[in-house]
Amino acid sequence: MSDEHNTQEPVMGTTRRGFLRQTAVAGASLVAGATAAQANSPDPLIVEQQDWAREFGDGVDAVPYGLPIRFESDVVRRNVEWLTADTTSSINFTPIHALDGTITPQGCAFERHHSGAIELSKADYRLMINGLVDTPLVFTYADLERFPRETRTYFLECAANTGMEWAGAQLNGAQFTHGMIHNMEYTGVMLSTLLKEAGVKPEGKWVLVEGADASSNGRSIPLEKIMDDCMIAFKANGEALRKEHGYPARLIVPGWEGNMWVKWVRRIEVGDQPWETREETSKYTDTLANGVSRKWTWVMDAKSVVTSPSPQAPITHGQGPLVITGLAWSGNGAITRVDVTTDGGKTWKEARLAAPGQKMALTRFYLDINWDGQEMLLQSRCHDETGYVQPTKDQLREVRGLNSIYHNNCIQTWWVKADGSAENVEVS
Amino acid sequence: MSDEHNTQEPVMGTTRRGFLRQTAVAGASLVAGATAAQANSPDPLIVEQQDWAREFGDGVDAVPYGLPIRFESDVVRRNVEWLTADTTSSINFTPIHALDGTITPQGCAFERHHSGAIELSKADYRLMINGLVDTPLVFTYADLERFPRETRTYFLECAANTGMEWAGAQLNGAQFTHGMIHNMEYTGVMLSTLLKEAGVKPEGKWVLVEGADASSNGRSIPLEKIMDDCMIAFKANGEALRKEHGYPARLIVPGWEGNMWVKWVRRIEVGDQPWETREETSKYTDTLANGVSRKWTWVMDAKSVVTSPSPQAPITHGQGPLVITGLAWSGNGAITRVDVTTDGGKTWKEARLAAPGQKMALTRFYLDINWDGQEMLLQSRCHDETGYVQPTKDQLREVRGLNSIYHNNCIQTWWVKADGSAENVEVS
Repeated sequence: MSDEHNTQEPVMGTTRRGFLRQTAVAGASLVAGATAAQANSPDPLIVEQQDWAREFGDGVDAVPYGLPIRFESDVVRRNVEWLTADTTSSINFTPIHALDGTITPQGCAFERHHSGAIELSKADYRLMINGLVDTPLVFTYADLERFPRETRTYFLECAANTGMEWAGAQLNGAQFTHGMIHNMEYTGVMLSTLLKEAGVKPEGKWVLVEGADASSNGRSIPLEKIMDDCMIAFKANGEALRKEHGYPARLIVPGWEGNMWVKWVRRIEVGDQPWETREETSKYTDTLANGVSRKWTWVMDAKSVVTSPSPQAPITHGQGPLVITGLAWSGNGAITRVDVTTDGGKTWKEARLAAPGQKMALTRFYLDINWDGQEMLLQSRCHDETGYVQPTKDQLREVRGLNSIYHNNCIQTWWVKADGSAENVEVS
Repeated sequence: MSDEHNTQEPVMGTTRRGFLRQTAVAGASLVAGATAAQANSPDPLIVEQQDWAREFGDGVDAVPYGLPIRFESDVVRRNVEWLTADTTSSINFTPIHALDGTITPQGCAFERHHSGAIELSKADYRLMINGLVDTPLVFTYADLERFPRETRTYFLECAANTGMEWAGAQLNGAQFTHGMIHNMEYTGVMLSTLLKEAGVKPEGKWVLVEGADASSNGRSIPLEKIMDDCMIAFKANGEALRKEHGYPARLIVPGWEGNMWVKWVRRIEVGDQPWETREETSKYTDTLANGVSRKWTWVMDAKSVVTSPSPQAPITHGQGPLVITGLAWSGNGAITRVDVTTDGGKTWKEARLAAPGQKMALTRFYLDINWDGQEMLLQSRCHDETGYVQPTKDQLREVRGLNSIYHNNCIQTWWVKADGSAENVEVS
């Protein structure tokens, strides 16, 4: 496997051994004083090892529920103070620049609240289904647990993710440009199961979903989508939903914009037309160049981003072997391919997917290169199973103009400099 | 989908509506006073909803890295005080009775340490490869990050998981009988990649792996397994390994007993024969009835357990629709089928797998039944892709005797009583 990957991009030098020797020296240069000096002796390679522990570590009773080690205290979600007047109606961002794989732990997964994260117990929880149904119903949390369950992994992306890029390269870091996203394994009940219990009348074509928070965050969703794959989830990544992700139950709307994934979901009303709520008229519409707003733009189109190297994850080891990695996803199905360019789009190489793309879930990609130490214009471009290809920023602006803050799925560019640092830039 | 599942076990009563009405009443009986009284009015169904929040909740700056909501404070790993003299060389248990899906969050994932969980920074970390290699090498953490990466999901099970069952049904709860297991998405470097850099000599057939903790936890592993699928992992479920799971790097040995997954891995020595370390002679061998010990019993055979209902997850809703769920896994490949019995093995029904089985990873299964309120002898029995079928406790004892504490993969029985409570019992 390693052989296969190394042939993607020939390693500079003549031997496989050369790959590592180069690496060892560069790596050692990160550590202090005497060690670095030793590391620079070319031959024989240093055999300087870490010490064995001389003392016992923590016992298994130290932390009944653990947190990350203190060295990782920088890997946290972050909000941007200037973005909103108040943090109770605001956003924070997943530290995607520091993560790998595809799962997002709940503890560092992006949050967006319209009126803050409320505390709602299972005992107090109710889910009502009413409107154009044969029998209006109210479910307790215990009721939900008695229906057939499904477990499925999906990404959630905020419609405004990457929204600042419409106006040009502004935020310096993948966490801030693309971190309004997470990917979790959900367990819950298909909403179709619950609606069949209530019995949807033939004239029912839409549903209104509401949360129990003060904002309600009411949204209209076509019945067809609801009956297809929407879930009422009560677990994420195996455990209960966290408070900030909608404990004890939230709506899952696979592939569609995150604001529709109503948290603390309390009511589902069936109707024959959309409700045109505040959240789907004053917000979450995309105003085009001619002033007309696109409405009902629910699906998150195929998109990708290089998470490392990136402005918050610079190259610290100098030239030589370099892992380029990132994430790709599509609200229309599975990712089938990701290309990476280091020259701003002149030439592309096909990246390796960590696993075959799964529908409406994050896909991790890797490209192993031998960096020559020169500056790069680094981009990724994904393809999904519908044949759709992620557009450039210019292509997107040509169709959508510059007025929107939503649904920006353009190719992102990081300018990686010779010193390994990176900046968010635009290329034309 | 719901229809399909409901036909597995006909719902008592004549209509689909009957399913829910029964559920609603039973569910409501869990909540207090007035609500329960209302719920008992048979028709029309109550439309009692939770209140909307009248106040804002927490802002997005409340918790940069989140923990579970306070209502879930019971869902934690637990150690058993009497098991070992000291908690620094002991075990705690994943709360599998309270989880669903397949991913185990690091925060509540089972731990086993031989000399405590040590704190080791990335800067101090070194991985040495020596012995029968062309060039001994030492890698820094930064070096490891420059090799091609893989992302794969695997279970880790302690060899002693379910070990108390050899002597009969003893521990009352799936967390304690089967909770020495977790399942995470790992990102790291294939060990074959690193060993190829060092160049394994033709006479190299085994490796010794050691951790940086005081115990070292040295174990011999055949080179063939190491080159096949073993990894040096630095991420789990997307983020850095937690301290208690081997930060900054641990060994992954897919399908093999957990003690070989060396944490804080510091050295890999290539040799021509096994080392016969303390951890593979005095421990982790299986003494048979005749006093002879089985050695090199690395693979964790196919196994399953019902996680709910179970002693820590009793039925609280009375008769009617009931979700039976649990986990299955095999160190020899993918789970292909799980059967569930409610009558102690007289009759079996095939459970539904939440997703097709993946090699050496946990598989979630569900069986939706209509509980008649009578007592049950609940068991699950899994099959893996090799055709192996999980044995009964008697079958296993017949071959292995009673002397071992390791590799007990027998069928587990929960006696569910008419009041919904459950006990760990043996059936013959």
